[in-house]
Amino acid sequence: MTQARKAVVLLSGGLDSATCLAIAKNEGFTPLALSFRYGQRHSVELEAARRVAKAMGAARHSIAEIDLRAFGGSALTDDIAVPKDRVEAEMEADGIPITYVPARNTIFLSYALALAEVEQAQDIYIGVNAVDYSGYPDCRPDFIAAFQAMANLATKAAVADGRKLTVHTPLIDLTKAEIIRTGLKLGVDYGLTITCYDPTPEGHACGRCDSCHLRLKGFAEAGIADPAPYVYRP
Amino acid sequence: MTQARKAVVLLSGGLDSATCLAIAKNEGFTPLALSFRYGQRHSVELEAARRVAKAMGAARHSIAEIDLRAFGGSALTDDIAVPKDRVEAEMEADGIPITYVPARNTIFLSYALALAEVEQAQDIYIGVNAVDYSGYPDCRPDFIAAFQAMANLATKAAVADGRKLTVHTPLIDLTKAEIIRTGLKLGVDYGLTITCYDPTPEGHACGRCDSCHLRLKGFAEAGIADPAPYVYRP
Repeated sequence: MTQARKAVVLLSGGLDSATCLAIAKNEGFTPLALSFRYGQRHSVELEAARRVAKAMGAARHSIAEIDLRAFGGSALTDDIAVPKDRVEAEMEADGIPITYVPARNTIFLSYALALAEVEQAQDIYIGVNAVDYSGYPDCRPDFIAAFQAMANLATKAAVADGRKLTVHTPLIDLTKAEIIRTGLKLGVDYGLTITCYDPTPEGHACGRCDSCHLRLKGFAEAGIADPAPYVYRP
Repeated sequence: MTQARKAVVLLSGGLDSATCLAIAKNEGFTPLALSFRYGQRHSVELEAARRVAKAMGAARHSIAEIDLRAFGGSALTDDIAVPKDRVEAEMEADGIPITYVPARNTIFLSYALALAEVEQAQDIYIGVNAVDYSGYPDCRPDFIAAFQAMANLATKAAVADGRKLTVHTPLIDLTKAEIIRTGLKLGVDYGLTITCYDPTPEGHACGRCDSCHLRLKGFAEAGIADPAPYVYRP
């Protein structure tokens, strides 16, 4: 009997990363979930990550403490207001959203790389998406490819032991509706996930931030009702 | 009057990074020092970093809390004994030293990248050395080049605003004696630094770990007495 290969899966507790975890599992990996407490306003996100990791049978769920607040620079970690009720044109006109966190995916993937080396895993899954998040440089294919190239020069595992690393981005070209349909086929319970930039302490989504708008639009396009709790539905 | 450009300098409190800070300053940058509390045994290292940053006039000294202990995998963060009194042949035979920390420089540089973006700095200094630390993959030129390439696809600063990032490694090809001579010319007080893998709580170096051996050999080759306090000198 061969043991399933392990894969580190970055898990935020949101819709995308939950789908990513289901895909990693479906592709034959034993998922090791990795989340971050990084001074984000919404630690309800981490509760969602715990629920998702448990429900989907992750072999391990590590939560790394990092503190990006000391550096500043984003609506998700500073006291800048999260924009509400913007139409898509306004989001796009921005280019790079106010919710951008400096070097966030670089830092997240670096931790994933460390965990992968310790766990002798050669695969990392990250739920980045270049369709809805084209404004985030660190959600694009060329960034992911450059990270993978760097990672394969960075560790004892890759350089001395020949265990090359692959960064998987199964959602990168999918629309929100396609992500939702994929997840539902694989048994994801989206009622456990939270995607909102500004949820209530009880974990209810605001229904009005860019992230809520994208999510609700995705469910509408997929022809399915979003099972997550909302304070307000437009 | 033009303002001096800022550079993020990774500062451990050791001999190499203190020299690196002096070089950044000498090359015309306003240094922003960045250190890490990462579950290392020796937090006396951070005291040394504070002394060095202050003595050398860093414009800012940030200490980021990260926790690599949760992942395990190194003598510097685990309960594995630090090897003592090894001769050089033994260190070299190892290939990759027991004190290797998974993905450490990748994580450190990722934080430096975030701080650089927030501070609008385009330069990072890291005191890696490929002469004495050839066994660490993340101290080698090809790793640094790959990190820089990745960084220039990772941030809003680089991608949208055209502020490209350079990772400087001024010590990479120097012997320990050359590093010491360079630092002395630039006024580094090596009595403030600590390099030991296993210092006493008071900050005295053990004189017997690989790092102490390399440092003392460097001072001997430079023909200078090491001003740092030691419990034991071989």
